Amino acid sequence: MCEYMGLLKGGKPMSGKPEVLYRHGDHYCLAFTDLVTGQGVQANQFLIVHGEHTLLLDPGGDLTYIPLNIAITRYINPKKLNYIFASHQDPDIIASIDRWMINSGCQVLVSKLWDRFLPHLLSAHVDKQVGDFNDRVVSIPDRGMRLPFGDSELVILPAHFLHSVGNFQLYDPISKILFSGDMGASIGDDSGAALVTDFAAHIPLMQGFHRRYMCSNKATRLWARMVKQLDVEMIVPQHGLAFKGANMIGEFLDWISDLECGVDRVQQQDYAVPS
Amino acid sequence: MCEYMGLLKGGKPMSGKPEVLYRHGDHYCLAFTDLVTGQGVQANQFLIVHGEHTLLLDPGGDLTYIPLNIAITRYINPKKLNYIFASHQDPDIIASIDRWMINSGCQVLVSKLWDRFLPHLLSAHVDKQVGDFNDRVVSIPDRGMRLPFGDSELVILPAHFLHSVGNFQLYDPISKILFSGDMGASIGDDSGAALVTDFAAHIPLMQGFHRRYMCSNKATRLWARMVKQLDVEMIVPQHGLAFKGANMIGEFLDWISDLECGVDRVQQQDYAVPS
Repeated sequence: MCEYMGLLKGGKPMSGKPEVLYRHGDHYCLAFTDLVTGQGVQANQFLIVHGEHTLLLDPGGDLTYIPLNIAITRYINPKKLNYIFASHQDPDIIASIDRWMINSGCQVLVSKLWDRFLPHLLSAHVDKQVGDFNDRVVSIPDRGMRLPFGDSELVILPAHFLHSVGNFQLYDPISKILFSGDMGASIGDDSGAALVTDFAAHIPLMQGFHRRYMCSNKATRLWARMVKQLDVEMIVPQHGLAFKGANMIGEFLDWISDLECGVDRVQQQDYAVPS
Repeated sequence: MCEYMGLLKGGKPMSGKPEVLYRHGDHYCLAFTDLVTGQGVQANQFLIVHGEHTLLLDPGGDLTYIPLNIAITRYINPKKLNYIFASHQDPDIIASIDRWMINSGCQVLVSKLWDRFLPHLLSAHVDKQVGDFNDRVVSIPDRGMRLPFGDSELVILPAHFLHSVGNFQLYDPISKILFSGDMGASIGDDSGAALVTDFAAHIPLMQGFHRRYMCSNKATRLWARMVKQLDVEMIVPQHGLAFKGANMIGEFLDWISDLECGVDRVQQQDYAVPS
């Protein structure tokens, strides 16, 4: 028997206690939702465990390094972490790479567009301790890839220009969770809810972000068509609430397919010498 | 009398000695071109000085923090640095923000799209030392702004979706230099040259990057039209060689205006579940 439990509750003090997104046998997916303190935008970090195999998804920067390290220690030995998956190159995604690389033997999965940018996060001193950087990074080709994960696998899906020009998402075929990064992200919910329950009421928490950060309707539409081919039980973004069940996921995919965003909306006046 | 000197020479060992892009009286613009070591992509960092007023442009991450700090000490007191300008949010742009904020009283200019993401670069411990983060960050509105700089000013120009969704460039009306960030960036030149001399021969060093990282021809075209309104003597990108003089700048602006890139080039097959 498998379980889908509550997740992504906002507005509570840092506990480090994750929400269990899925658990069945020795396979589980955890969401850490309350580790961001201070001025930073709320962000979720995720741990996927399959027996002895472990992957951390978008662990963030220095702000969340220590709290996340402590939090995952309840479940795994951080020194034995196998993989970090970085959906893209942002500060809230992967800026703590230096500390994870030194303190574990993990490999970092990141777009080939960003593999040569990540070394800028390591001082020359740290770089020497890490060893050959190229041995520690798996460059994801633009088409994505399937990552063997014990006797299972994880599917790395292309989501370019949403928002980053080199951007990926992770689909776990066992839990049927799509970890969608910034797609579907919402900001400002303080209801304490875990899941979107009223799609129309949720739109105002997503609309401004998606209109401005997502590059073009062409990309959102092509992405949504791809996702409709998959058997998805939950879409879990990196910020805010999750979408669960075919109806709610369908509503989100229809909405994002029709959204005018990014370069669709710019005009010459948006590229003008400021007065 | 003012001087434009050689710059951006590639393939030499780290010296920390900058190229002088411009100097006239107490106004000068310096390019640090050889501070990146190891596996990271080559990147230029810039210092603009106007009398007692100082601005550092895209200083980078931990990789360049110490070398750049040492290098600028020959010219200014780093503790008295007034501004850091971050064109966008990437690791090679602004990941060392924590160290600059602690070791100087500088303010950081960055797109309002990224101001809430930068705190992820600071541990909770560092955040306490920095004081109120909001007092240290100037959020640039989408339209850009003019920054008073002693008895002069610097013009912050919108360059969104090129490549970052929230992206700016800096124009210095005294030197007439446009610091263009990733626009015009070239990778792989090992000639030791400072400036582009043969535009057609230079295209192969730019084309792959601009086609894949720039979001859309709509954005490149609108941006180029804006730049044509300005009196620009040099376009100096963050990677590689610079463009100098009306003819060479015109060639670049015409080329980028016509370039199909980013979402213009994607199709459904680029958003497909990998097999």
